[in-house]
Amino acid sequence: MTVYRQILELDGTAGTDIHEVTSQVAAVAADSGLSRGSVLVFTPGSTAAVTTIEYEPGALSDLRRLLEDLAPTDGEYAHNLRWGDGNGYSHLRSALLGPSLTVPLEAGRLMLGAWQQIVVLDFDNRPRRRKVVVTVQGG
Amino acid sequence: MTVYRQILELDGTAGTDIHEVTSQVAAVAADSGLSRGSVLVFTPGSTAAVTTIEYEPGALSDLRRLLEDLAPTDGEYAHNLRWGDGNGYSHLRSALLGPSLTVPLEAGRLMLGAWQQIVVLDFDNRPRRRKVVVTVQGG
Amino acid sequence: MTVYRQILELDGTAGTDIHEVTSQVAAVAADSGLSRGSVLVFTPGSTAAVTTIEYEPGALSDLRRLLEDLAPTDGEYAHNLRWGDGNGYSHLRSALLGPSLTVPLEAGRLMLGAWQQIVVLDFDNRPRRRKVVVTVQGG
Repeated sequence: MTVYRQILELDGTAGTDIHEVTSQVAAVAADSGLSRGSVLVFTPGSTAAVTTIEYEPGALSDLRRLLEDLAPTDGEYAHNLRWGDGNGYSHLRSALLGPSLTVPLEAGRLMLGAWQQIVVLDFDNRPRRRKVVVTVQGG
Repeated sequence: MTVYRQILELDGTAGTDIHEVTSQVAAVAADSGLSRGSVLVFTPGSTAAVTTIEYEPGALSDLRRLLEDLAPTDGEYAHNLRWGDGNGYSHLRSALLGPSLTVPLEAGRLMLGAWQQIVVLDFDNRPRRRKVVVTVQGG
Repeated sequence: MTVYRQILELDGTAGTDIHEVTSQVAAVAADSGLSRGSVLVFTPGSTAAVTTIEYEPGALSDLRRLLEDLAPTDGEYAHNLRWGDGNGYSHLRSALLGPSLTVPLEAGRLMLGAWQQIVVLDFDNRPRRRKVVVTVQGG
């Protein structure tokens, strides 16, 4: 059993970014040389999240609307009143979706569905370089 | 340290299915022969999810209503306009709840609460045979 | 590769508790003696959840309001009608946020963002002693 790790870097905008990282995560899994185990995708930071979705413009548009309904960009937030940075909505979206996802690995490949992609969501209201920690554990 | 895996198969309906899989996951854990570690429950596919809940009709009914409030079956979705398959709500529910759950293993048993069951939710609007990948890692 | 485990205990109130456990989880990781791998934080029970957030009063207040919007404490729940224990909202919040979080470990330290804290949410409507299972896996 071994642990293998790489860190991806993603450049975001001031809006909500939905980064599709499936092929990058799959490349890390292949680089690991491990056959069977799991792949942890984690985003350090309290204004981002990781999940899966069918990465096509319709579903992404629907997801943006749902997130806007749940935690509107221009809503009133106690966080904003205290800190004045205007990203209260980002913190809520991040806490709700969560920063970690684990995908099983078989024969060195991710066991995802055919239309299931891994996405890192960057909710912050300023452009950021975002790290994504990919950890492969297995044998 | 070893990795042990089995794949469960679940038959769903055209509606939102809530499959209770605790005993099946516990059986995989027992079959693994491993004592201490973790059990990853993952559903490949962009219209399903995994979480835990007290599996009793009241809580399940409440969960169905919450999901219907968040992403109504008959809502308007850009995904549906593009693809015409009518399962835009399924994609949103899946992205929100997430496809992975990890449960600790001790003495070969799942460390769940007394009233906490593992459920696989199949949101798709057509009957599907759904795979659930159960991966046990530990020593 | 080794598996190391400790169980934390948290005392809650009848309201929604947001327990910040980052330093306790980091101490378990340090105690493990492991360098690289992952740390699973899991709460057994169907009325609690684990996620990350910036632990400052504004963001916590915003999170409480969002949860109250999604699953109001005084809403009508089929669970309550069946069982009379009044914690239907707790079950929904728990199922939505989920009971597990996995954080990568590097050089014996949690790879969290600077403003990202690990929180255990106890939604139950009676004071409970809550267990949190911390499992470190790696080499």
